[in-house]
Amino acid sequence: MHIHIQLLPFPPAPNLVSDRVVVVIDILRATSVMVQAMWQGVREIIPVKTVEEAFQLAKTFPPNTTLLGGERGSKKIEGFDLGNSPREYQGEKVRGKRLILTTTNGTKAFHAVSSGKNVLVGSFLNISAVAKRCFELNQDLFIYLSGDEGNFSLEDTVCGGMLIDRIVKEGRKPFSLTDASRTAHIVFRKFEANVVESFYLSQHGKSLVDKGFEEDLAYCAQVDTTDLVPVFKEGVIRAPSSPPSPLGGEG
Amino acid sequence: MHIHIQLLPFPPAPNLVSDRVVVVIDILRATSVMVQAMWQGVREIIPVKTVEEAFQLAKTFPPNTTLLGGERGSKKIEGFDLGNSPREYQGEKVRGKRLILTTTNGTKAFHAVSSGKNVLVGSFLNISAVAKRCFELNQDLFIYLSGDEGNFSLEDTVCGGMLIDRIVKEGRKPFSLTDASRTAHIVFRKFEANVVESFYLSQHGKSLVDKGFEEDLAYCAQVDTTDLVPVFKEGVIRAPSSPPSPLGGEG
Repeated sequence: MHIHIQLLPFPPAPNLVSDRVVVVIDILRATSVMVQAMWQGVREIIPVKTVEEAFQLAKTFPPNTTLLGGERGSKKIEGFDLGNSPREYQGEKVRGKRLILTTTNGTKAFHAVSSGKNVLVGSFLNISAVAKRCFELNQDLFIYLSGDEGNFSLEDTVCGGMLIDRIVKEGRKPFSLTDASRTAHIVFRKFEANVVESFYLSQHGKSLVDKGFEEDLAYCAQVDTTDLVPVFKEGVIRAPSSPPSPLGGEG
Repeated sequence: MHIHIQLLPFPPAPNLVSDRVVVVIDILRATSVMVQAMWQGVREIIPVKTVEEAFQLAKTFPPNTTLLGGERGSKKIEGFDLGNSPREYQGEKVRGKRLILTTTNGTKAFHAVSSGKNVLVGSFLNISAVAKRCFELNQDLFIYLSGDEGNFSLEDTVCGGMLIDRIVKEGRKPFSLTDASRTAHIVFRKFEANVVESFYLSQHGKSLVDKGFEEDLAYCAQVDTTDLVPVFKEGVIRAPSSPPSPLGGEG
């Protein structure tokens, strides 16, 4: 298995996306929110680029089936149901719902890799399950880091490095690392005992603390709270085995 | 001092280059060749993008004043005087000469940051002198890694991380690290005891070994063989205090 990680969020070469398993990571906080939301019973997530697009799309679905979630400047968007804190996504208010999500980095990332056939949502919350799914799919791996407003993100790299570590340690098949994936692995090992430390050192982590979201750091640093591995396909994120949505409105 | 490192070789935002000290690094092997060549008495180096450009430029200078150096596919270019191995650049054949250099990654890097007022040539060979010069210039620092054919390069990152380490340890003034510069520092620390180990793990290092240039790895991994810090200005690399060239032909 060839393991590559793209350290900065730019449109990847098409050959990196086609015929590989793509894992998208935006630890603070979009992919953590996605995994948490689906674990708590959200039926599907539609990542969109703009706030306007989110409002327009919501109108096409029946009432009380759809939630609007996301952030701008880390904060909940006016008129939205939920922000971008994974702690918000639990209980009855989310169960069975469709979530339209727009965030600064993470939702754009999915559009950058939308041509991929197997695009998985990765986070610390489901990291071992993602590694297991990568083994099952048995293809080369491309890890896409969503970054921090176009810049390199330490916490995304640490999570990508943990995924690499899980795969390397499993050791069921030969693997090869690129310079980038080797580097992510080294960086993960530095924070292995306490991944949240990397959040407190990172620019985006510091910014979240400043804005009052410090509790999200510990939340997003939880490892393996679920074995759910959401899949992004044709613009929608769903649990891998879920049937077409009965909520209506897709036509 | 704000310390940023760009982990991938793309044109940097103008504000990262202006009013900062820029250090360009292409360990295997362009900036190692440049430092070695100037240490051995090469008077000036003109980095050019294409082989054709190198031949054309050479014709504009008087006979016996100018050497053509560089590589394509790591190998010496037909009709050139020298390849891209720092070991070639020593003794009478280079002393006092002008070098026109074209390489796959490194010479392009200088054109990417050509708007900078203080662009320095960095390598392990002169790393402590580069750190010292950064302190003297007393500006924010932008480290530009030349990469490996557009990809992230482990060995360039290790060298950038060593420069950061030198500055952080000196500790004469407060500094701030970006996620990227923190990561480069972590990666350097991993290979601190033996930087050449990172070359043997890197894609470009492996490729050089395959092509018969293994001796260059140890050569480029030498730390502090010289205190010369070449400067890139108006398209030409010179020693910082050297007077205008007496070789003629610039008009």
